[in-house]
Amino acid sequence: MAERALEALIDALRRLPGVGVKSAQRMAFHLLQHDRDGALRLATALGDAVHRMRHCQRCHTFTEAEVCSTCEDPRRDGRQLCVVETPADQAALERSGSYKGLYFVLMGRISPLDGVGAADIGAERLLERAGDGVVEEVILATGFTAEGEVTAHALSQALKARGLRVTRLARGVPAGSELEYVDLSTIAHAMGDRR
Amino acid sequence: MAERALEALIDALRRLPGVGVKSAQRMAFHLLQHDRDGALRLATALGDAVHRMRHCQRCHTFTEAEVCSTCEDPRRDGRQLCVVETPADQAALERSGSYKGLYFVLMGRISPLDGVGAADIGAERLLERAGDGVVEEVILATGFTAEGEVTAHALSQALKARGLRVTRLARGVPAGSELEYVDLSTIAHAMGDRR
Ligand SMILES: [Zn+2]
Ligand SMILES: [Zn+2]
Repeated sequence: MAERALEALIDALRRLPGVGVKSAQRMAFHLLQHDRDGALRLATALGDAVHRMRHCQRCHTFTEAEVCSTCEDPRRDGRQLCVVETPADQAALERSGSYKGLYFVLMGRISPLDGVGAADIGAERLLERAGDGVVEEVILATGFTAEGEVTAHALSQALKARGLRVTRLARGVPAGSELEYVDLSTIAHAMGDRR
Repeated sequence: MAERALEALIDALRRLPGVGVKSAQRMAFHLLQHDRDGALRLATALGDAVHRMRHCQRCHTFTEAEVCSTCEDPRRDGRQLCVVETPADQAALERSGSYKGLYFVLMGRISPLDGVGAADIGAERLLERAGDGVVEEVILATGFTAEGEVTAHALSQALKARGLRVTRLARGVPAGSELEYVDLSTIAHAMGDRR
């Protein structure tokens, strides 16, 4: 076969989330026909990200340093710790401008059907982080999906058992939705009404 | 900023067709969190494809050799030449099992609004290829979109002026649709009913 490199590219693109075989073909043809520079830039960016990005030792989000720029920011209020599922959810909260505390990023959520438990989302690390003596309130901002609610419930119990004050974003967020797709004023209201 | 490599990856992913900022974020987080091997494999595949894939000297599709495996196949009927917009369209025709001739891949289509004319889709190269003395029939299988029809019309006139027999896939293909998304039996019928 004289098209092996093309097949390999289509296969590799298919591993991206949300990309089926037809999208992968389109992407491969587009890159080869119209954007070879973009293809090489993407190759470099992938290698750089894999080799440089690790997890922040305080909040567990992705960073190139020991501790991420948010955790390092002296203007953030260390008495509040907001727990989110993903960096995208954190970014949505940041864009809403309704929060000035710190974060903890689970990088997932409890999903009994997929065999993902509290240990897999770093619950121990969260309990340790929240028990630093500075944190006064832990705001659970996991999604309002079935799995997000299960996650919030499990974390809430463990955090309360340690004597921490635990709140949850108000139910202004439409049920069944992922936080990152919610409009910003809804997020801001939910932050203000947290209970 | 301690997240530069991540930002660069998201930017590079956004250049893929059909990928907006949120999809790019999801892809980047997924790769870093769950599939670093896949990320490195994609980086390698991109580099390999860019460095190895060029255009077939006979049909203009992507190949690593001078001439692609389809053009080299002695079982194909050299008297028929089917003109398609993209390798994906060619793949759809192949899957329909309705055609045993050779192909010419335009790698585009005439689009006056985007300033894409006959020269940009290699019309000269097609006329040369079709005039090899072996080709008896040129089957125009460009899409049944406005641009696909314009392309077929322009190529048809040029090919007929050279004394070639020109046919078009039958209008069984639903109007307004891209060939690669048409179901295979419709393609097979349209091939049988070509006029
Ligand atoms: Zn951090
Ligand atoms: Zn060829």
